[in-house]
Amino acid sequence: MSDHLIIFDTTLRDGEQSPGASMTREEKLRIARQLERMRVDVIEAGFPAASNGDFESVRSIAEAIRESTVCGLARANENDIRRAGEAIRPAALGRIHTFIATSPIHMEKKLRMSPDEVVAQAVKAIGWAREYTDDIEFSAEDAGRSEIDFLCRIFEEVIKAGATTINVPDTVGYNVPEQLANTIRNLIERVPNSDKVVWSVHCHNDLGLAVANSLASVLAGARQVECTINGLGERAGNASLEENVMAVRTRRDVFPCDTRIDTTQIVPASKLVSGVTGFPVQPNKAIVGANAFSHESGIHQDGVLKHRETYEIMRAEDVGWGANKLVLGKHSGRNAFRTRLQEIGIVIESEDHLNHAFARFKELADKKHEIFDEDLNALMSDEIVTPEQEHFRLVSSRFLSETGEPPEAELTIAAGGTESHVKSTGSGPVDATFRAIESVAQSGTELLLYSVNAITTGTDAQGEVTVRLARDGKVVNGQGADTDIIVASAKAYLNALNKLHGNMERLNPQV
Amino acid sequence: MSDHLIIFDTTLRDGEQSPGASMTREEKLRIARQLERMRVDVIEAGFPAASNGDFESVRSIAEAIRESTVCGLARANENDIRRAGEAIRPAALGRIHTFIATSPIHMEKKLRMSPDEVVAQAVKAIGWAREYTDDIEFSAEDAGRSEIDFLCRIFEEVIKAGATTINVPDTVGYNVPEQLANTIRNLIERVPNSDKVVWSVHCHNDLGLAVANSLASVLAGARQVECTINGLGERAGNASLEENVMAVRTRRDVFPCDTRIDTTQIVPASKLVSGVTGFPVQPNKAIVGANAFSHESGIHQDGVLKHRETYEIMRAEDVGWGANKLVLGKHSGRNAFRTRLQEIGIVIESEDHLNHAFARFKELADKKHEIFDEDLNALMSDEIVTPEQEHFRLVSSRFLSETGEPPEAELTIAAGGTESHVKSTGSGPVDATFRAIESVAQSGTELLLYSVNAITTGTDAQGEVTVRLARDGKVVNGQGADTDIIVASAKAYLNALNKLHGNMERLNPQV
Repeated sequence: MSDHLIIFDTTLRDGEQSPGASMTREEKLRIARQLERMRVDVIEAGFPAASNGDFESVRSIAEAIRESTVCGLARANENDIRRAGEAIRPAALGRIHTFIATSPIHMEKKLRMSPDEVVAQAVKAIGWAREYTDDIEFSAEDAGRSEIDFLCRIFEEVIKAGATTINVPDTVGYNVPEQLANTIRNLIERVPNSDKVVWSVHCHNDLGLAVANSLASVLAGARQVECTINGLGERAGNASLEENVMAVRTRRDVFPCDTRIDTTQIVPASKLVSGVTGFPVQPNKAIVGANAFSHESGIHQDGVLKHRETYEIMRAEDVGWGANKLVLGKHSGRNAFRTRLQEIGIVIESEDHLNHAFARFKELADKKHEIFDEDLNALMSDEIVTPEQEHFRLVSSRFLSETGEPPEAELTIAAGGTESHVKSTGSGPVDATFRAIESVAQSGTELLLYSVNAITTGTDAQGEVTVRLARDGKVVNGQGADTDIIVASAKAYLNALNKLHGNMERLNPQV
Repeated sequence: MSDHLIIFDTTLRDGEQSPGASMTREEKLRIARQLERMRVDVIEAGFPAASNGDFESVRSIAEAIRESTVCGLARANENDIRRAGEAIRPAALGRIHTFIATSPIHMEKKLRMSPDEVVAQAVKAIGWAREYTDDIEFSAEDAGRSEIDFLCRIFEEVIKAGATTINVPDTVGYNVPEQLANTIRNLIERVPNSDKVVWSVHCHNDLGLAVANSLASVLAGARQVECTINGLGERAGNASLEENVMAVRTRRDVFPCDTRIDTTQIVPASKLVSGVTGFPVQPNKAIVGANAFSHESGIHQDGVLKHRETYEIMRAEDVGWGANKLVLGKHSGRNAFRTRLQEIGIVIESEDHLNHAFARFKELADKKHEIFDEDLNALMSDEIVTPEQEHFRLVSSRFLSETGEPPEAELTIAAGGTESHVKSTGSGPVDATFRAIESVAQSGTELLLYSVNAITTGTDAQGEVTVRLARDGKVVNGQGADTDIIVASAKAYLNALNKLHGNMERLNPQV
């Protein structure tokens, strides 16, 4: 029997640190439920000490998730660890993940601590964590540029203190596969009691090698890989969950281990994360890209027809492409609506909320023939904003554009209870709309990104617009969906303004 | 001194085979000029035997490019090789790349030839190619699943016959790095005269390992990597040029070789290819993604401030981020316009054409304050369609949408010289527009994809719309750019219809 490879998903922690990818508590819960459905072993739910919002998110996920371990991140100090311990307390299976930098450059320039002080601090951190759980992961930040002797020393001490998983992150994505594999092989050989813990890697993709580095480490003895859906994460992102999982599954002849992942949940998870964050997946992305399984070339198609195996190493349906796409239509009732929402991980708590959401579903079904899971996700993303978060709201709109005339937008916008009627022209109807909104909001933001994707195919598809705004170094994404692309644009812009309006300071760790 | 690593770019051949990524001759020329500016060693310009259009494209590139080798692909038969030879004849440096399948499954099921027949055919192919050039590349299709003894035998024979580059493709993206590296190491050891040729790899990204496989092969002795801009290519694409180049450049301590690539041309090349094909680059793509060099997290920013080196392994400006963005404005003259077009690789041959393009530039500058390279690329993509290719054309439009009323589009469309005035409603203004166009065109196509990206930042940015249509298994992309997103949508839809209108059958090889 082959070994078990632990999949540690950090979409909600490291993934969420991408500029503009911050998620609400409800969005995180939906993604966590999808990760549980996919049978991820460990869900890193957030960094509880970062802010009260982060603490609450981790705590809600710890309450909701039963089949996956829920993990909270903490720097190696007492406050961080106690916050993480409190946040994961409701979990069926809870883990604390604590870290400290171990490379000379980080110890000297960032921590301003001596190597001895760093080891002592790490050991103390494990002690605090043990007051909350026996499942403790320790990470050596910037391990890729740390000295191997020092790594051996600190790992020996934290294992003695009670750490059960030892993680080796390549924080800046600088390693090449054989190098990281050598590090792992060396550590397992040299660290006393290395067979009592699980060895883990956490790879960044700056040189495009995150998955290759993870897999090389698995061949060298690592039995946990840290990864994210779609490879989301700061800069070029983290190792992608779907590539790690499918490489190991497809090449069972090479890898001495396998995961417990239900691969048919991969594409739904990818779409959910892409929809929530507004980060598109490029068509030529492995496994989850729209073209990943499409065969175009004449010669090639001929090959496929002659013998299926000639060109196929995986089947699209095994990773969840094309599974039950059509879900609801205009004749679907309230119960069918609620059931489907539950099936895709959206739990509605109050009857009022359900009634409101159902009314909006009916409105959409009047305009659009077939309602897909993606439509429901978009609908509920709008819906989930609670009234106190919604400072700005679109009441009604009128758009006119005609060859030779400047396009014109006329909007009624509610801002904190007061309705304003505004009118503006612009270089296009979207520009006119944004100008009209700004005449009310006066936000002083800069528009960094504007993109639209059709949520489903067909000409009556909803457009989902993503708007990225920046102010004072803070970046937020807003989303809006509608069958009218200009209305969707207005909603997205207002959604981003609402996020800026209710925003709080927080800290993101770098592991 | 370190060895030279040859960069063989196949964006125009294997990249173009992505469903919906087909390019016009003019688009290919622009990309080829950018590849030459980036100092790519070999440009695989196309597959001349596929169609007359492909032949003409390769020939035009062979005429225009002086600093890079121009390569044409050919199956191992006389007709294909003679077509490729004719197409590259005008090149300063010309190469013929011929291939035949060598895996048992391909030889038996696809070629229906015995191994002896395959070797004989390959040797004959090299002979025909030598009538045109001394620079001959031979590929063993599906080498990843071929028997090593047979590979040694066929490579020995083609080297004897005159092949100068031996390419080992992982056609279905099934290899893991150590495995492909072992194959390369073995071949170099065992094949007689292996030191007289350049060893090459061509990797596909189905498991996310294309770059890792390429780099492992380089460590094993390969001195050419085949790759594409943005990793474009069928299914999950090819190894990406930018990741290969930057990994080797950044890790000079690991790799015994370097490329001659001007890395500051990487981001402009990425934007050009993405603009021409309509394939977006995801923000978390290594090197060329919008987030690849952005630093978000609080802890991390602190680290960057304290010591730049802490988190940076590459500099954004080294790969061409942020280089001369602003180029022209409404006061720019005809000469400045022509000069900038030349600088970004767009050559306008006739004065009439220049006058027409300049008039459209002035129109755009009236609506939009600052004109960037991306705007010029989009403008010229529209412009380059020659009248005979433009069956359908938008003459004028009027759009109205208002809360509570169905959106309405009123268009005047010229179809083959006749103007029609049409009006339609829809679930949104884009839907209404597409319905209005269909009432004239009656194309019977299916809309597979609709997406919009702002070409530059700011609210007066142009929207570039991509529309993907399918009919009878044929897939085309249409693009349209305008400051009015609905007008851009109409242009994109008409552009796709024009491509379907003038489309011809052709064959795409699978290497």
